[in-house]
Amino acid sequence: MAEPLFNRLALIGIGHIGASIAGALKARPGIAARLVVSDANPEHLKRAETLALGDEYQQDAALAVKNADGVILCTPVGSFAGIAEAIAPHLAPGCILSDVGSTKQSVIRDVLPFVPRGVSFVPAHPMAGTEFSGPDAGVPSLFEGRWCLLTPIEGVDEGATHKIEQFWRALGARTARMGAAHHDRVLAIVSHLPHLIAFTICGTADDLADETREEVLQFAATGFRDFTRIAASDPVMWRDIFVNNKDALLEMFSRFSEDAQAMARAVRWGDTDYIEDKIQRSRKIRKSLIDIKQA
Amino acid sequence: MAEPLFNRLALIGIGHIGASIAGALKARPGIAARLVVSDANPEHLKRAETLALGDEYQQDAALAVKNADGVILCTPVGSFAGIAEAIAPHLAPGCILSDVGSTKQSVIRDVLPFVPRGVSFVPAHPMAGTEFSGPDAGVPSLFEGRWCLLTPIEGVDEGATHKIEQFWRALGARTARMGAAHHDRVLAIVSHLPHLIAFTICGTADDLADETREEVLQFAATGFRDFTRIAASDPVMWRDIFVNNKDALLEMFSRFSEDAQAMARAVRWGDTDYIEDKIQRSRKIRKSLIDIKQA
Repeated sequence: MAEPLFNRLALIGIGHIGASIAGALKARPGIAARLVVSDANPEHLKRAETLALGDEYQQDAALAVKNADGVILCTPVGSFAGIAEAIAPHLAPGCILSDVGSTKQSVIRDVLPFVPRGVSFVPAHPMAGTEFSGPDAGVPSLFEGRWCLLTPIEGVDEGATHKIEQFWRALGARTARMGAAHHDRVLAIVSHLPHLIAFTICGTADDLADETREEVLQFAATGFRDFTRIAASDPVMWRDIFVNNKDALLEMFSRFSEDAQAMARAVRWGDTDYIEDKIQRSRKIRKSLIDIKQA
Repeated sequence: MAEPLFNRLALIGIGHIGASIAGALKARPGIAARLVVSDANPEHLKRAETLALGDEYQQDAALAVKNADGVILCTPVGSFAGIAEAIAPHLAPGCILSDVGSTKQSVIRDVLPFVPRGVSFVPAHPMAGTEFSGPDAGVPSLFEGRWCLLTPIEGVDEGATHKIEQFWRALGARTARMGAAHHDRVLAIVSHLPHLIAFTICGTADDLADETREEVLQFAATGFRDFTRIAASDPVMWRDIFVNNKDALLEMFSRFSEDAQAMARAVRWGDTDYIEDKIQRSRKIRKSLIDIKQA
Protein backbone atom coordinates (compact mmCIF):
# COMPACT_ATOMS: atom_id res chain seq x y z
CA MET A 1 0.00 0.00 0.00
CA ALA A 2 1.12 3.55 -0.81
CA GLU A 3 2.32 5.98 1.87
CA PRO A 4 -0.55 7.87 3.52
CA LEU A 5 -0.80 11.52 2.43
CA PHE A 6 -0.83 12.55 6.07
CA ASN A 7 0.50 10.70 9.09
CA ARG A 8 -1.47 12.78 11.52
CA LEU A 9 -4.30 14.93 10.19
CA ALA A 10 -6.23 17.30 12.46
CA LEU A 11 -9.73 18.54 11.58
CA ILE A 12 -10.58 21.72 13.49
CA GLY A 13 -14.39 21.76 13.61
CA ILE A 14 -16.56 18.68 13.17
CA GLY A 15 -19.73 20.13 11.60
CA HIS A 16 -21.28 19.14 8.26
CA ILE A 17 -18.04 19.51 6.24
CA GLY A 18 -15.65 18.22 8.91
CA ALA A 19 -17.81 15.17 9.56
CA SER A 20 -18.09 14.56 5.80
CA ILE A 21 -14.29 14.64 5.45
CA ALA A 22 -13.99 12.27 8.41
CA GLY A 23 -16.55 9.91 6.90
CA ALA A 24 -14.88 10.06 3.48
CA LEU A 25 -11.49 9.25 5.06
CA LYS A 26 -12.97 6.31 6.93
CA ALA A 27 -14.38 4.96 3.66
CA ARG A 28 -10.94 5.35 2.04
CA PRO A 29 -8.33 4.07 4.50
CA GLY A 30 -4.72 5.06 3.79
CA ILE A 31 -5.18 8.77 3.08
CA ALA A 32 -4.62 9.83 6.67
CA ALA A 33 -2.90 7.34 9.00
CA ARG A 34 -4.37 9.01 12.07
CA LEU A 35 -7.25 11.48 12.32
CA VAL A 36 -7.51 13.95 15.20
CA VAL A 37 -10.94 15.54 15.60
CA SER A 38 -11.25 18.86 17.41
CA ASP A 39 -14.26 21.02 18.20
CA ALA A 40 -14.69 23.87 20.67
CA ASN A 41 -18.24 22.66 21.32
CA PRO A 42 -17.95 19.76 23.83
CA GLU A 43 -21.32 18.31 22.75
CA HIS A 44 -20.29 18.17 19.11
CA LEU A 45 -16.95 16.63 20.08
CA LYS A 46 -18.66 14.01 22.21
CA ARG A 47 -21.10 13.24 19.41
CA ALA A 48 -18.17 12.85 16.98
CA GLU A 49 -16.59 10.35 19.41
CA THR A 50 -19.86 8.43 19.70
CA LEU A 51 -20.01 8.29 15.90
CA ALA A 52 -16.33 7.20 15.90
CA LEU A 53 -15.49 9.86 13.30
CA GLY A 54 -11.78 10.01 14.26
CA ASP A 55 -8.95 8.30 16.12
CA GLU A 56 -8.43 11.01 18.76
CA TYR A 57 -10.66 13.74 20.16
CA GLN A 58 -9.39 17.02 21.51
CA GLN A 59 -11.45 20.06 22.45
CA ASP A 60 -8.45 22.40 22.47
CA ALA A 61 -7.36 23.10 18.88
CA ALA A 62 -3.84 24.04 20.07
CA LEU A 63 -3.42 20.54 21.51
CA ALA A 64 -5.11 18.88 18.50
CA VAL A 65 -2.55 20.23 16.01
CA LYS A 66 0.52 19.01 17.97
CA ASN A 67 2.75 16.85 15.74
CA ALA A 68 0.19 16.96 12.94
CA ASP A 69 1.56 17.13 9.37
CA GLY A 70 -1.83 18.26 8.14
CA VAL A 71 -4.42 20.62 9.68
CA ILE A 72 -7.73 21.57 8.04
CA LEU A 73 -9.88 24.38 9.44
CA CYS A 74 -13.54 23.34 9.11
CA THR A 75 -15.25 26.01 11.23
CA PRO A 76 -17.19 29.09 10.05
CA VAL A 77 -14.73 31.55 8.47
CA GLY A 78 -15.39 34.19 11.13
CA SER A 79 -13.56 32.01 13.67
CA PHE A 80 -10.41 31.53 11.57
CA ALA A 81 -8.34 34.48 12.93
CA GLY A 82 -8.80 33.37 16.54
CA ILE A 83 -8.08 29.73 15.77
CA ALA A 84 -5.02 30.60 13.65
CA GLU A 85 -3.62 32.70 16.49
CA ALA A 86 -4.28 29.92 19.02
CA ILE A 87 -2.78 27.05 17.03
CA ALA A 88 0.14 28.89 15.34
CA PRO A 89 2.72 28.35 18.13
CA HIS A 90 1.89 24.63 18.19
CA LEU A 91 2.16 23.85 14.47
CA ALA A 92 5.03 21.48 13.67
CA PRO A 93 7.61 22.48 11.04
CA GLY A 94 6.64 21.03 7.66
CA CYS A 95 2.95 20.96 8.56
CA ILE A 96 0.45 21.89 5.86
CA LEU A 97 -2.35 24.14 7.07
CA SER A 98 -5.48 24.27 4.90
CA ASP A 99 -9.15 25.13 5.24
CA VAL A 100 -12.58 24.65 3.64
CA GLY A 101 -13.84 28.25 3.89
CA SER A 102 -16.23 29.68 1.27
CA THR A 103 -14.43 33.06 1.19
CA LYS A 104 -10.75 33.10 0.31
CA GLN A 105 -9.46 36.70 0.52
CA SER A 106 -10.72 37.04 4.08
CA VAL A 107 -9.25 33.68 5.05
CA ILE A 108 -5.83 34.67 3.74
CA ARG A 109 -6.14 38.05 5.49
CA ASP A 110 -7.09 36.37 8.79
CA VAL A 111 -4.83 33.30 8.81
CA LEU A 112 -1.63 34.14 6.91
CA PRO A 113 -0.22 36.65 9.45
CA PHE A 114 -0.13 33.89 12.09
CA VAL A 115 1.39 31.11 9.94
CA PRO A 116 4.90 30.38 11.30
CA ARG A 117 7.96 29.90 9.09
CA GLY A 118 8.21 26.30 7.93
CA VAL A 119 4.45 25.81 7.81
CA SER A 120 2.68 25.96 4.40
CA PHE A 121 -0.77 27.54 4.25
CA VAL A 122 -2.89 26.29 1.31
CA PRO A 123 -6.35 27.93 1.15
CA ALA A 124 -8.94 25.57 -0.33
CA HIS A 125 -12.70 25.51 -0.82
CA PRO A 126 -14.57 22.27 -1.52
CA MET A 127 -17.78 23.41 -3.25
CA ALA A 128 -20.09 20.93 -1.65
CA GLY A 129 -22.59 20.96 1.15
CA THR A 130 -26.23 20.48 2.00
CA GLU A 131 -28.52 22.54 4.19
CA PHE A 132 -27.83 20.26 7.16
CA SER A 133 -25.28 20.94 9.90
CA GLY A 134 -23.51 19.36 12.86
CA PRO A 135 -21.47 16.14 13.30
CA ASP A 136 -24.47 13.96 12.49
CA ALA A 137 -24.76 15.59 9.06
CA GLY A 138 -21.58 14.02 7.67
CA VAL A 139 -21.97 12.61 4.16
CA PRO A 140 -18.94 10.50 3.15
CA SER A 141 -19.74 10.82 -0.57
CA LEU A 142 -20.26 14.62 -0.33
CA PHE A 143 -17.19 15.60 -2.37
CA GLU A 144 -17.47 13.03 -5.15
CA GLY A 145 -17.54 14.74 -8.53
CA ARG A 146 -17.65 18.21 -6.92
CA TRP A 147 -15.09 20.96 -7.40
CA CYS A 148 -12.51 21.88 -4.79
CA LEU A 149 -11.01 25.31 -5.60
CA LEU A 150 -7.51 26.14 -4.37
CA THR A 151 -6.25 29.72 -4.17
CA PRO A 152 -2.51 29.22 -3.61
CA ILE A 153 -0.52 32.07 -2.03
CA GLU A 154 2.54 33.24 -3.95
CA GLY A 155 5.75 31.86 -2.57
CA VAL A 156 4.16 28.91 -0.79
CA ASP A 157 5.75 25.50 -1.42
CA GLU A 158 4.28 23.93 -4.57
CA GLY A 159 4.59 20.50 -2.95
CA ALA A 160 2.14 21.55 -0.24
CA THR A 161 -0.42 22.82 -2.76
CA HIS A 162 -0.06 19.63 -4.75
CA LYS A 163 -0.57 17.53 -1.61
CA ILE A 164 -3.85 19.31 -0.83
CA GLU A 165 -4.94 18.72 -4.43
CA GLN A 166 -4.11 15.02 -4.05
CA PHE A 167 -6.07 14.95 -0.80
CA TRP A 168 -9.26 16.31 -2.38
CA ARG A 169 -8.90 14.14 -5.46
CA ALA A 170 -8.55 11.14 -3.16
CA LEU A 171 -11.94 12.13 -1.68
CA GLY A 172 -13.43 12.12 -5.21
CA ALA A 173 -13.34 15.87 -5.93
CA ARG A 174 -12.05 17.66 -9.01
CA THR A 175 -9.59 20.47 -8.28
CA ALA A 176 -8.87 23.84 -9.90
CA ARG A 177 -6.62 26.76 -8.98
CA MET A 178 -7.44 30.45 -9.21
CA GLY A 179 -6.67 33.75 -7.52
CA ALA A 180 -8.45 34.46 -4.23
CA ALA A 181 -10.10 37.68 -5.50
CA HIS A 182 -11.43 35.91 -8.57
CA HIS A 183 -12.70 33.03 -6.42
CA ASP A 184 -14.60 35.45 -4.22
CA ARG A 185 -16.32 37.12 -7.19
CA VAL A 186 -17.35 33.81 -8.76
CA LEU A 187 -18.68 32.50 -5.45
CA ALA A 188 -20.52 35.75 -4.76
CA ILE A 189 -22.72 35.23 -7.83
CA VAL A 190 -23.09 31.43 -7.86
CA SER A 191 -23.58 30.90 -4.14
CA HIS A 192 -23.46 33.84 -1.74
CA LEU A 193 -26.00 36.10 -3.49
CA PRO A 194 -28.49 33.23 -4.09
CA HIS A 195 -28.31 32.46 -0.37
CA LEU A 196 -28.80 36.11 0.63
CA ILE A 197 -31.85 36.27 -1.65
CA ALA A 198 -33.29 33.01 -0.34
CA PHE A 199 -32.89 34.07 3.30
CA THR A 200 -34.53 37.39 2.46
CA ILE A 201 -37.57 36.09 0.60
CA CYS A 202 -38.37 33.66 3.42
CA GLY A 203 -38.42 36.62 5.80
CA THR A 204 -40.57 38.63 3.39
CA ALA A 205 -43.11 35.79 3.36
CA ASP A 206 -42.94 35.49 7.13
CA ASP A 207 -43.82 39.19 7.49
CA LEU A 208 -47.10 38.80 5.61
CA ALA A 209 -50.30 38.93 7.59
CA ASP A 210 -50.93 35.78 9.59
CA GLU A 211 -53.68 34.40 7.40
CA THR A 212 -51.66 34.68 4.21
CA ARG A 213 -48.55 33.28 5.90
CA GLU A 214 -50.27 30.05 6.81
CA GLU A 215 -51.37 29.66 3.24
CA VAL A 216 -47.89 30.50 2.03
CA LEU A 217 -46.74 27.45 3.94
CA GLN A 218 -49.69 25.28 3.00
CA PHE A 219 -49.56 26.02 -0.70
CA ALA A 220 -45.82 26.54 -1.06
CA ALA A 221 -45.23 25.96 -4.75
CA THR A 222 -42.08 24.53 -6.26
CA GLY A 223 -40.30 27.85 -6.56
CA PHE A 224 -40.65 28.73 -2.91
CA ARG A 225 -39.77 25.23 -1.77
CA ASP A 226 -36.44 25.44 -3.60
CA PHE A 227 -35.77 28.79 -1.94
CA THR A 228 -36.48 27.48 1.54
CA ARG A 229 -34.20 24.50 0.98
CA ILE A 230 -31.33 26.92 0.36
CA ALA A 231 -32.51 29.09 3.23
CA ALA A 232 -32.30 26.26 5.76
CA SER A 233 -28.50 26.46 5.86
CA ASP A 234 -26.42 27.20 8.97
CA PRO A 235 -26.90 30.78 10.23
CA VAL A 236 -23.42 31.32 11.73
CA MET A 237 -21.64 29.89 8.71
CA TRP A 238 -23.58 32.12 6.31
CA ARG A 239 -23.40 35.22 8.50
CA ASP A 240 -19.61 34.80 8.43
CA ILE A 241 -19.52 34.26 4.66
CA PHE A 242 -21.58 37.39 4.00
CA VAL A 243 -19.46 39.77 6.08
CA ASN A 244 -16.20 38.18 4.90
CA ASN A 245 -17.05 38.48 1.20
CA LYS A 246 -18.69 41.86 1.61
CA ASP A 247 -17.21 43.67 -1.39
CA ALA A 248 -17.90 41.01 -4.01
CA LEU A 249 -21.31 40.19 -2.52
CA LEU A 250 -22.43 43.83 -2.45
CA GLU A 251 -21.24 44.34 -6.02
CA MET A 252 -23.21 41.32 -7.23
CA PHE A 253 -26.22 42.40 -5.14
CA SER A 254 -26.08 45.83 -6.71
CA ARG A 255 -26.01 44.35 -10.24
CA PHE A 256 -28.87 42.01 -9.35
CA SER A 257 -30.94 44.85 -7.82
CA GLU A 258 -30.63 46.94 -10.95
CA ASP A 259 -31.69 43.98 -13.08
CA ALA A 260 -34.59 43.10 -10.78
CA GLN A 261 -35.81 46.72 -10.78
CA ALA A 262 -35.68 46.70 -14.58
CA MET A 263 -37.73 43.49 -14.62
CA ALA A 264 -40.28 44.96 -12.17
CA ARG A 265 -40.53 48.07 -14.34
CA ALA A 266 -41.18 45.87 -17.39
CA VAL A 267 -43.94 44.08 -15.45
CA ARG A 268 -45.49 47.40 -14.39
CA TRP A 269 -45.52 48.80 -17.92
CA GLY A 270 -46.38 45.51 -19.64
CA ASP A 271 -43.14 45.35 -21.63
CA THR A 272 -43.70 41.73 -22.64
CA ASP A 273 -40.79 41.63 -25.12
CA TYR A 274 -38.34 42.59 -22.39
CA ILE A 275 -39.72 40.01 -19.96
CA GLU A 276 -39.76 37.20 -22.52
CA ASP A 277 -36.22 38.04 -23.65
CA LYS A 278 -34.90 37.88 -20.08
CA ILE A 279 -36.60 34.54 -19.45
CA GLN A 280 -35.20 33.18 -22.73
CA ARG A 281 -31.72 34.18 -21.61
CA SER A 282 -32.01 32.45 -18.26
CA ARG A 283 -33.18 29.33 -20.08
CA LYS A 284 -30.01 29.41 -22.16
CA ILE A 285 -27.89 29.54 -19.01
CA ARG A 286 -29.77 26.54 -17.72
CA LYS A 287 -29.07 24.75 -20.99
CA SER A 288 -25.35 25.58 -20.74
CA LEU A 289 -25.36 24.16 -17.23
CA ILE A 290 -26.90 20.93 -18.43
CA ASP A 291 -24.48 20.78 -21.35
CA ILE A 292 -21.48 20.88 -19.03
CA LYS A 293 -23.15 18.30 -16.77
CA GLN A 294 -23.31 20.48 -13.68
CA ALA A 295 -27.10 20.46 -13.46
CA MET B 1 -68.50 1.25 -13.32
CA ALA B 2 -69.65 4.73 -12.27
CA GLU B 3 -70.79 7.37 -14.76
CA PRO B 4 -67.87 9.31 -16.26
CA LEU B 5 -67.55 12.88 -14.90
CA PHE B 6 -67.46 14.16 -18.48
CA ASN B 7 -68.82 12.54 -21.63
CA ARG B 8 -66.78 14.73 -23.89
CA LEU B 9 -63.91 16.73 -22.41
CA ALA B 10 -61.92 19.20 -24.49
CA LEU B 11 -58.40 20.30 -23.51
CA ILE B 12 -57.47 23.58 -25.20
CA GLY B 13 -53.65 23.53 -25.29
CA ILE B 14 -51.55 20.38 -25.05
CA GLY B 15 -48.37 21.65 -23.37
CA HIS B 16 -46.88 20.40 -20.11
CA ILE B 17 -50.10 20.71 -18.08
CA GLY B 18 -52.51 19.65 -20.85
CA ALA B 19 -50.41 16.60 -21.68
CA SER B 20 -50.17 15.74 -17.98
CA ILE B 21 -53.97 15.89 -17.64
CA ALA B 22 -54.31 13.72 -20.77
CA GLY B 23 -51.80 11.20 -19.39
CA ALA B 24 -53.50 11.16 -16.00
CA LEU B 25 -56.89 10.54 -17.65
CA LYS B 26 -55.46 7.70 -19.69
CA ALA B 27 -54.09 6.10 -16.53
CA ARG B 28 -57.53 6.46 -14.90
CA PRO B 29 -60.19 5.40 -17.45
CA GLY B 30 -63.74 6.42 -16.69
CA ILE B 31 -63.23 10.08 -15.72
CA ALA B 32 -63.74 11.38 -19.24
CA ALA B 33 -65.51 9.11 -21.76
CA ARG B 34 -63.96 10.94 -24.69
CA LEU B 35 -61.04 13.37 -24.76
CA VAL B 36 -60.69 16.02 -27.45
CA VAL B 37 -57.24 17.55 -27.72
CA SER B 38 -56.83 20.99 -29.30
CA ASP B 39 -53.77 23.12 -29.92
CA ALA B 40 -53.26 26.11 -32.19
CA ASN B 41 -49.74 24.87 -32.91
CA PRO B 42 -50.07 22.14 -35.59
CA GLU B 43 -46.74 20.56 -34.60
CA HIS B 44 -47.82 20.21 -30.98
CA LEU B 45 -51.17 18.80 -32.07
CA LYS B 46 -49.50 16.28 -34.38
CA ARG B 47 -47.10 15.27 -31.62
CA ALA B 48 -50.06 14.80 -29.25
CA GLU B 49 -51.68 12.52 -31.83
CA THR B 50 -48.46 10.53 -32.26
CA LEU B 51 -48.33 10.14 -28.47
CA ALA B 52 -52.03 9.13 -28.56
CA LEU B 53 -52.83 11.62 -25.80
CA GLY B 54 -56.52 11.94 -26.75
CA ASP B 55 -59.39 10.41 -28.76
CA GLU B 56 -59.83 13.31 -31.20
CA TYR B 57 -57.54 16.08 -32.39
CA GLN B 58 -58.72 19.46 -33.51
CA GLN B 59 -56.58 22.52 -34.23
CA ASP B 60 -59.52 24.92 -34.11
CA ALA B 61 -60.63 25.39 -30.50
CA ALA B 62 -64.11 26.48 -31.63
CA LEU B 63 -64.60 23.10 -33.31
CA ALA B 64 -62.98 21.21 -30.42
CA VAL B 65 -65.53 22.43 -27.86
CA LYS B 66 -68.61 21.42 -29.91
CA ASN B 67 -70.90 19.17 -27.86
CA ALA B 68 -68.35 19.04 -25.04
CA ASP B 69 -69.73 18.97 -21.48
CA GLY B 70 -66.31 19.97 -20.13
CA VAL B 71 -63.67 22.37 -21.50
CA ILE B 72 -60.35 23.12 -19.79
CA LEU B 73 -58.13 25.97 -20.98
CA CYS B 74 -54.50 24.82 -20.70
CA THR B 75 -52.70 27.60 -22.63
CA PRO B 76 -50.71 30.55 -21.22
CA VAL B 77 -53.14 32.96 -19.47
CA GLY B 78 -52.40 35.75 -21.95
CA SER B 79 -54.25 33.79 -24.65
CA PHE B 80 -57.43 33.25 -22.60
CA ALA B 81 -59.41 36.31 -23.76
CA GLY B 82 -58.96 35.44 -27.44
CA ILE B 83 -59.77 31.78 -26.91
CA ALA B 84 -62.83 32.56 -24.77
CA GLU B 85 -64.17 34.90 -27.45
CA ALA B 86 -63.57 32.28 -30.17
CA ILE B 87 -65.14 29.32 -28.39
CA ALA B 88 -68.02 31.10 -26.59
CA PRO B 89 -70.58 30.80 -29.44
CA HIS B 90 -69.85 27.08 -29.74
CA LEU B 91 -70.14 26.07 -26.09
CA ALA B 92 -73.07 23.71 -25.48
CA PRO B 93 -75.67 24.58 -22.81
CA GLY B 94 -74.73 22.86 -19.52
CA CYS B 95 -71.04 22.79 -20.41
CA ILE B 96 -68.54 23.49 -17.63
CA LEU B 97 -65.67 25.74 -18.67
CA SER B 98 -62.57 25.64 -16.47
CA ASP B 99 -58.85 26.44 -16.72
CA VAL B 100 -55.46 25.78 -15.15
CA GLY B 101 -54.10 29.36 -15.14
CA SER B 102 -51.71 30.57 -12.43
CA THR B 103 -53.44 33.95 -12.11
CA LYS B 104 -57.12 34.04 -11.25
CA GLN B 105 -58.33 37.67 -11.21
CA SER B 106 -57.04 38.22 -14.75
CA VAL B 107 -58.57 34.96 -15.94
CA ILE B 108 -61.98 35.94 -14.58
CA ARG B 109 -61.58 39.41 -16.10
CA ASP B 110 -60.66 37.95 -19.52
CA VAL B 111 -63.00 34.94 -19.75
CA LEU B 112 -66.18 35.70 -17.81
CA PRO B 113 -67.52 38.41 -20.19
CA PHE B 114 -67.66 35.84 -22.99
CA VAL B 115 -69.26 32.98 -21.06
CA PRO B 116 -72.77 32.41 -22.47
CA ARG B 117 -75.86 31.84 -20.34
CA GLY B 118 -76.19 28.17 -19.44
CA VAL B 119 -72.42 27.60 -19.31
CA SER B 120 -70.69 27.48 -15.89
CA PHE B 121 -67.20 28.97 -15.63
CA VAL B 122 -65.13 27.48 -12.76
CA PRO B 123 -61.62 29.02 -12.48
CA ALA B 124 -59.09 26.52 -11.14
CA HIS B 125 -55.35 26.34 -10.65
CA PRO B 126 -53.57 23.02 -10.15
CA MET B 127 -50.33 23.96 -8.33
CA ALA B 128 -48.06 21.54 -10.08
CA GLY B 129 -45.55 21.67 -12.88
CA THR B 130 -41.93 21.19 -13.73
CA GLU B 131 -39.57 23.35 -15.78
CA PHE B 132 -40.31 21.27 -18.90
CA SER B 133 -42.82 22.22 -21.59
CA GLY B 134 -44.60 20.87 -24.66
CA PRO B 135 -46.72 17.74 -25.34
CA ASP B 136 -43.76 15.44 -24.64
CA ALA B 137 -43.45 16.83 -21.12
CA GLY B 138 -46.68 15.26 -19.85
CA VAL B 139 -46.34 13.58 -16.45
CA PRO B 140 -49.44 11.48 -15.61
CA SER B 141 -48.65 11.55 -11.88
CA LEU B 142 -48.03 15.32 -11.84
CA PHE B 143 -51.08 16.24 -9.76
CA GLU B 144 -50.89 13.46 -7.17
CA GLY B 145 -50.79 14.94 -3.68
CA ARG B 146 -50.61 18.50 -5.03
CA TRP B 147 -53.11 21.29 -4.37
CA CYS B 148 -55.64 22.46 -6.92
CA LEU B 149 -57.06 25.85 -5.89
CA LEU B 150 -60.54 26.84 -7.06
CA THR B 151 -61.72 30.45 -7.04
CA PRO B 152 -65.47 30.08 -7.65
CA ILE B 153 -67.37 33.05 -9.05
CA GLU B 154 -70.43 34.17 -7.06
CA GLY B 155 -73.66 32.95 -8.56
CA VAL B 156 -72.13 30.09 -10.52
CA ASP B 157 -73.80 26.69 -10.13
CA GLU B 158 -72.39 24.87 -7.07
CA GLY B 159 -72.75 21.58 -8.94
CA ALA B 160 -70.27 22.75 -11.56
CA THR B 161 -67.70 23.78 -8.95
CA HIS B 162 -68.15 20.46 -7.19
CA LYS B 163 -67.66 18.58 -10.45
CA ILE B 164 -64.34 20.35 -11.11
CA GLU B 165 -63.29 19.48 -7.54
CA GLN B 166 -64.20 15.84 -8.19
CA PHE B 167 -62.22 15.95 -11.42
CA TRP B 168 -59.01 17.13 -9.74
CA ARG B 169 -59.44 14.76 -6.81
CA ALA B 170 -59.84 11.93 -9.31
CA LEU B 171 -56.42 12.93 -10.71
CA GLY B 172 -54.96 12.65 -7.20
CA ALA B 173 -54.95 16.33 -6.21
CA ARG B 174 -56.22 17.96 -3.03
CA THR B 175 -58.61 20.86 -3.56
CA ALA B 176 -59.26 24.13 -1.72
CA ARG B 177 -61.45 27.15 -2.43
CA MET B 178 -60.55 30.80 -1.95
CA GLY B 179 -61.20 34.24 -3.39
CA ALA B 180 -59.40 35.12 -6.63
CA ALA B 181 -57.67 38.20 -5.13
CA HIS B 182 -56.41 36.18 -2.18
CA HIS B 183 -55.19 33.44 -4.53
CA ASP B 184 -53.21 35.97 -6.54
CA ARG B 185 -51.47 37.39 -3.44
CA VAL B 186 -50.52 33.95 -2.12
CA LEU B 187 -49.21 32.84 -5.51
CA ALA B 188 -47.29 36.10 -5.95
CA ILE B 189 -45.13 35.32 -2.93
CA VAL B 190 -44.84 31.51 -3.16
CA SER B 191 -44.35 31.23 -6.90
CA HIS B 192 -44.39 34.33 -9.10
CA LEU B 193 -41.80 36.40 -7.19
CA PRO B 194 -39.38 33.45 -6.79
CA HIS B 195 -39.56 32.93 -10.55
CA LEU B 196 -39.00 36.62 -11.29
CA ILE B 197 -35.95 36.56 -9.01
CA ALA B 198 -34.58 33.36 -10.53
CA PHE B 199 -34.95 34.69 -14.08
CA THR B 200 -33.23 37.90 -13.03
CA ILE B 201 -30.22 36.41 -11.26
CA CYS B 202 -29.49 34.16 -14.23
CA GLY B 203 -29.36 37.26 -16.41
CA THR B 204 -27.15 39.06 -13.89
CA ALA B 205 -24.69 36.18 -14.05
CA ASP B 206 -24.89 36.13 -17.83
CA ASP B 207 -23.92 39.82 -17.94
CA LEU B 208 -20.65 39.25 -16.09
CA ALA B 209 -17.45 39.43 -18.08
CA ASP B 210 -16.89 36.41 -20.29
CA GLU B 211 -14.18 34.82 -18.19
CA THR B 212 -16.20 34.93 -15.00
CA ARG B 213 -19.33 33.73 -16.78
CA GLU B 214 -17.69 30.53 -17.92
CA GLU B 215 -16.60 29.85 -14.39
CA VAL B 216 -20.06 30.70 -13.11
CA LEU B 217 -21.30 27.82 -15.22
CA GLN B 218 -18.40 25.53 -14.45
CA PHE B 219 -18.51 26.01 -10.71
CA ALA B 220 -22.24 26.57 -10.29
CA ALA B 221 -22.82 25.75 -6.63
CA THR B 222 -25.98 24.30 -5.22
CA GLY B 223 -27.68 27.65 -4.70
CA PHE B 224 -27.32 28.75 -8.27
CA ARG B 225 -28.30 25.36 -9.67
CA ASP B 226 -31.63 25.53 -7.83
CA PHE B 227 -32.20 29.00 -9.25
CA THR B 228 -31.50 27.91 -12.80
CA ARG B 229 -33.85 24.95 -12.45
CA ILE B 230 -36.67 27.39 -11.66
CA ALA B 231 -35.44 29.74 -14.37
CA ALA B 232 -35.70 27.08 -17.09
CA SER B 233 -39.50 27.37 -17.18
CA ASP B 234 -41.55 28.36 -20.23
CA PRO B 235 -40.98 32.02 -21.25
CA VAL B 236 -44.44 32.74 -22.70
CA MET B 237 -46.26 31.15 -19.78
CA TRP B 238 -44.27 33.17 -17.25
CA ARG B 239 -44.38 36.42 -19.21
CA ASP B 240 -48.17 36.08 -19.19
CA ILE B 241 -48.28 35.29 -15.47
CA PHE B 242 -46.17 38.32 -14.57
CA VAL B 243 -48.21 40.88 -16.51
CA ASN B 244 -51.51 39.27 -15.44
CA ASN B 245 -50.69 39.30 -11.73
CA LYS B 246 -48.95 42.66 -11.89
CA ASP B 247 -50.40 44.30 -8.79
CA ALA B 248 -49.77 41.46 -6.33
CA LEU B 249 -46.38 40.65 -7.89
CA LEU B 250 -45.18 44.26 -7.69
CA GLU B 251 -46.36 44.55 -4.09
CA MET B 252 -44.46 41.42 -3.10
CA PHE B 253 -41.43 42.55 -5.10
CA SER B 254 -41.48 45.88 -3.31
CA ARG B 255 -41.59 44.17 0.12
CA PHE B 256 -38.78 41.83 -0.93
CA SER B 257 -36.66 44.71 -2.27
CA GLU B 258 -36.90 46.60 1.01
CA ASP B 259 -35.92 43.47 2.94
CA ALA B 260 -33.04 42.69 0.56
CA GLN B 261 -31.74 46.27 0.82
CA ALA B 262 -31.86 46.00 4.61
CA MET B 263 -29.89 42.75 4.43
CA ALA B 264 -27.31 44.31 2.07
CA ARG B 265 -26.97 47.26 4.44
CA ALA B 266 -26.36 44.86 7.34
CA VAL B 267 -23.66 43.14 5.27
CA ARG B 268 -22.04 46.48 4.44
CA TRP B 269 -21.96 47.63 8.06
CA GLY B 270 -21.17 44.23 9.55
CA ASP B 271 -24.43 43.99 11.53
CA THR B 272 -23.95 40.31 12.27
CA ASP B 273 -26.85 40.11 14.75
CA TYR B 274 -29.28 41.31 12.10
CA ILE B 275 -27.97 38.86 9.50
CA GLU B 276 -27.99 35.90 11.87
CA ASP B 277 -31.50 36.73 13.07
CA LYS B 278 -32.84 36.85 9.50
CA ILE B 279 -31.22 33.51 8.63
CA GLN B 280 -32.64 31.96 11.81
CA ARG B 281 -36.10 33.13 10.76
CA SER B 282 -35.87 31.61 7.31
CA ARG B 283 -34.78 28.35 8.91
CA LYS B 284 -37.94 28.39 11.00
CA ILE B 285 -40.06 28.78 7.87
CA ARG B 286 -38.27 25.82 6.37
CA LYS B 287 -39.01 23.84 9.51
CA SER B 288 -42.70 24.78 9.32
CA LEU B 289 -42.74 23.60 5.72
CA ILE B 290 -41.28 20.25 6.70
CA ASP B 291 -43.71 20.00 9.60
CA ILE B 292 -46.70 20.31 7.30
CA LYS B 293 -45.08 17.85 4.88
CA GLN B 294 -44.88 20.25 1.97
CA ALA B 295 -41.09 20.15 1.76
